[in-house]
Amino acid sequence: MSVPQAREAASSLQLCRIMRPNDANIVGNVHGGIILKMIEEAGCIVGTRHCNTQNGDRCLAALVRVEKTEFLSPVFIGEVAHVTAEITYTSKHSLEVQVKVMAENILTGAKKLANKAALWYVPCSLQNVDKIMEVPPVKYASAEEEEEGRKRYEAQKIERLETKARIEEMVPSPPNPEDPPKEQHTVGFSQSSLIHLVGPSDCTLHSYVHGGVTMKLMDEVAGIVAARHCNTNIVTASVDAINFHRKIKKGCVVTVTGRLTFVSNKSMEIEVLVDATSLVETEKGKYRAVSAFFTFISLDKDNKPLPVPPLKIDGEEEQRRFEAGKARYLQNKAKRLAEKVRQQ
Amino acid sequence: MSVPQAREAASSLQLCRIMRPNDANIVGNVHGGIILKMIEEAGCIVGTRHCNTQNGDRCLAALVRVEKTEFLSPVFIGEVAHVTAEITYTSKHSLEVQVKVMAENILTGAKKLANKAALWYVPCSLQNVDKIMEVPPVKYASAEEEEEGRKRYEAQKIERLETKARIEEMVPSPPNPEDPPKEQHTVGFSQSSLIHLVGPSDCTLHSYVHGGVTMKLMDEVAGIVAARHCNTNIVTASVDAINFHRKIKKGCVVTVTGRLTFVSNKSMEIEVLVDATSLVETEKGKYRAVSAFFTFISLDKDNKPLPVPPLKIDGEEEQRRFEAGKARYLQNKAKRLAEKVRQQ
Amino acid sequence: MSVPQAREAASSLQLCRIMRPNDANIVGNVHGGIILKMIEEAGCIVGTRHCNTQNGDRCLAALVRVEKTEFLSPVFIGEVAHVTAEITYTSKHSLEVQVKVMAENILTGAKKLANKAALWYVPCSLQNVDKIMEVPPVKYASAEEEEEGRKRYEAQKIERLETKARIEEMVPSPPNPEDPPKEQHTVGFSQSSLIHLVGPSDCTLHSYVHGGVTMKLMDEVAGIVAARHCNTNIVTASVDAINFHRKIKKGCVVTVTGRLTFVSNKSMEIEVLVDATSLVETEKGKYRAVSAFFTFISLDKDNKPLPVPPLKIDGEEEQRRFEAGKARYLQNKAKRLAEKVRQQ
Repeated sequence: MSVPQAREAASSLQLCRIMRPNDANIVGNVHGGIILKMIEEAGCIVGTRHCNTQNGDRCLAALVRVEKTEFLSPVFIGEVAHVTAEITYTSKHSLEVQVKVMAENILTGAKKLANKAALWYVPCSLQNVDKIMEVPPVKYASAEEEEEGRKRYEAQKIERLETKARIEEMVPSPPNPEDPPKEQHTVGFSQSSLIHLVGPSDCTLHSYVHGGVTMKLMDEVAGIVAARHCNTNIVTASVDAINFHRKIKKGCVVTVTGRLTFVSNKSMEIEVLVDATSLVETEKGKYRAVSAFFTFISLDKDNKPLPVPPLKIDGEEEQRRFEAGKARYLQNKAKRLAEKVRQQ
Repeated sequence: MSVPQAREAASSLQLCRIMRPNDANIVGNVHGGIILKMIEEAGCIVGTRHCNTQNGDRCLAALVRVEKTEFLSPVFIGEVAHVTAEITYTSKHSLEVQVKVMAENILTGAKKLANKAALWYVPCSLQNVDKIMEVPPVKYASAEEEEEGRKRYEAQKIERLETKARIEEMVPSPPNPEDPPKEQHTVGFSQSSLIHLVGPSDCTLHSYVHGGVTMKLMDEVAGIVAARHCNTNIVTASVDAINFHRKIKKGCVVTVTGRLTFVSNKSMEIEVLVDATSLVETEKGKYRAVSAFFTFISLDKDNKPLPVPPLKIDGEEEQRRFEAGKARYLQNKAKRLAEKVRQQ
Repeated sequence: MSVPQAREAASSLQLCRIMRPNDANIVGNVHGGIILKMIEEAGCIVGTRHCNTQNGDRCLAALVRVEKTEFLSPVFIGEVAHVTAEITYTSKHSLEVQVKVMAENILTGAKKLANKAALWYVPCSLQNVDKIMEVPPVKYASAEEEEEGRKRYEAQKIERLETKARIEEMVPSPPNPEDPPKEQHTVGFSQSSLIHLVGPSDCTLHSYVHGGVTMKLMDEVAGIVAARHCNTNIVTASVDAINFHRKIKKGCVVTVTGRLTFVSNKSMEIEVLVDATSLVETEKGKYRAVSAFFTFISLDKDNKPLPVPPLKIDGEEEQRRFEAGKARYLQNKAKRLAEKVRQQ
């Protein structure tokens, strides 16, 4: 109360970094996963800082959800990405961080909006990771602002519960690279998976994997699937809401699998499933930690969208997933249209 | 017995990763050391997972030996390397993992076999790193398969004992970069060494250096030696069997030294010696942890092998090493010929 | 006394590494910060090794000061940087390490001197990081050598005390990327800051940030400021003496801010301020850990220096900093001239 200045500083943050060759694909487009990782890093810092402005156990903000996010313009090697994060809502045990990414060409001075995202965190005690702490309230500019935040909070709470069921689905084993080649443009042809052994640099002070590290791996697999399907330069266009249901600990092996679910004229939807297994506590078995839908587009040399080859569907299960993907695609399209109309 | 599916899954593994600019040299060839590091990562995961499918101490599979391995075709930036690992033999206290690397061009869909390797691991208890655990047996498809594995096991056991003597040899101090330049194409001219301070991201859960990290450093030094000798684009062609006699702990300084031993028309053999010293426990002194022979070839712009300048030998010691290298070269050549004949 | 060989080995060291794409900017110039990080790594190894050649607590050498250093020639991707470090003076509780960086083009064999630096370390006990250990004395070639070292020691001690006052200065908040654009070539236009969450791979065995990691971040911010001011390819030309007054612990957030202080015809001086905050112990607040002046130059395609746009000064504070920067610039110029005369 006596330090509004400090309180304000604690609830917002700016972070920037130059994009390096390893952050990008061969033609220089920075991977969506790199942007997602920076967004989550900013969110984790601002969230953790805020939740420690009170007495009680020291704690870390753990990512539980990222709202649907769109990649509005491409970022290139040598550009500086500016990430601005702000706490925009707090409930008793969670907080919302809104993050904006601006890409700046430091040679020409040109700036463009690259991404906008909203993330939800809960504070976990450093003494006992399963103990969720209370979140100190933020001040709102108006009662309307608070009310809108509360609506977003309720909406995501419902969605998180709903996806808890979906997430437990089985994942097929990865194709053996020596199997006879599958027919091109089928789901099986482009399905891909990667494995990552969680090391110390992937982890928080709790020794759990940063949500941003997981999202980077997910984007990597989705990119491989998309490139295999259309054999062109591909980039992340958007990511559907992601819920982080279960934590992944240091020393685990993470298996990330991606498969095409739906393809429109100019976009591909890829479902990405993240499974974790403890290497040493094998009796615990494999468990699904996260799942999400990534949308990729295919670009020509001038970064203009190219048509995407149609997806060849095989069997009822693939058809069911295709229809569900189509429904998401049409719903998103309608939403974008409605927003355009609203803005005019 | 009741879970053959899970047991099977535990003894094999697939891992993949996109090759990035930092993984390759200036002309885009992925370093052999990067491939070796991925191979070892796959072996460590599958070995550790298998050894924890029983009761008793939790343990980690520690690399003790890599059999001779050849780099069959080059891998490039932007390609996806698929690493498939399978447990192919188990003795009471060790296990063999066979690993295959396929490189896939995700734009054209072309795939090629990049490497095949066999690695030996022993399970070390997480409670006490010096306690070697027992290895649960794997099932073999046939009695012949088991018998062949037993033969490989016996053969490597003998070789490991033999090299234990050789490994303790002294290493000359690194040349001072300010010394008057040595004559070109001598052993002294291209001899190189690098130093690396072992950090947390190099280490296993035990806080010991991953075998793959050590091999990557070895390949890096060998590559510098080869480039200095022939001033062209060089790539790793093969690596002789490597035995990991002693572990290297976090906080150690690793000195990796490479020197030419033998040069044929189209290849260079480089001996690489790895010495470790604890920075804080200096009384323990420097000790030899690993040594190995790397073979490099020189390539022109179209990735065709170039002739290699002859090596100028100076003194008896260099002559002795040259003859030994020549013997290994001729032996390998004969083996390859025999295999060709056998396959026809 | 009975092991002069070992003693000698303990007080000097050579380290080398190939420069990779991520180490350099878009046109292939290796960042000054990468060179500084390697220099500090070599200094830390040789210092720590030396301070553990005695009985008593095991300890780590912590960087407290880097003397003014100049980047004498550019280093490129694919070159091998050789770093040679030697202990050149020891006081009761500190030691001086002189480091030289040679860059070698391994294809042509050409070598050039890239950098020379002097670093001061103090040994901190591993049991208690605030306990400063004694430093075993080194042997000098002559009494003159020792006397010159003592003079350097006294000079830096005075300077370190003097800068302790300056360092506590306030830093302005970072500009919001969405603010209306500032006028080009003003201080505000190019001012930049970045934030970094300290992870395990940034830290020593003590879990404190390596001085070299901090210098790399400082060089990165200074480079962004310089590029924004002149919109060309820029490189680090020199760094004024840096004092590390306070340590930065794992789990801290580091804010690094750079702003132009002075611009001559062909160079830019950028003041870089490093502030640290603990994410979890927020009551401790933000503290200034380091500050330093970096000088950058602007290069054309042939690596020739370009003229730098003049700096538009706004207000008394900026004028005061400009005059102080000009004084440093003229003093350095005079020193260089005097040295040239002395060498003739």
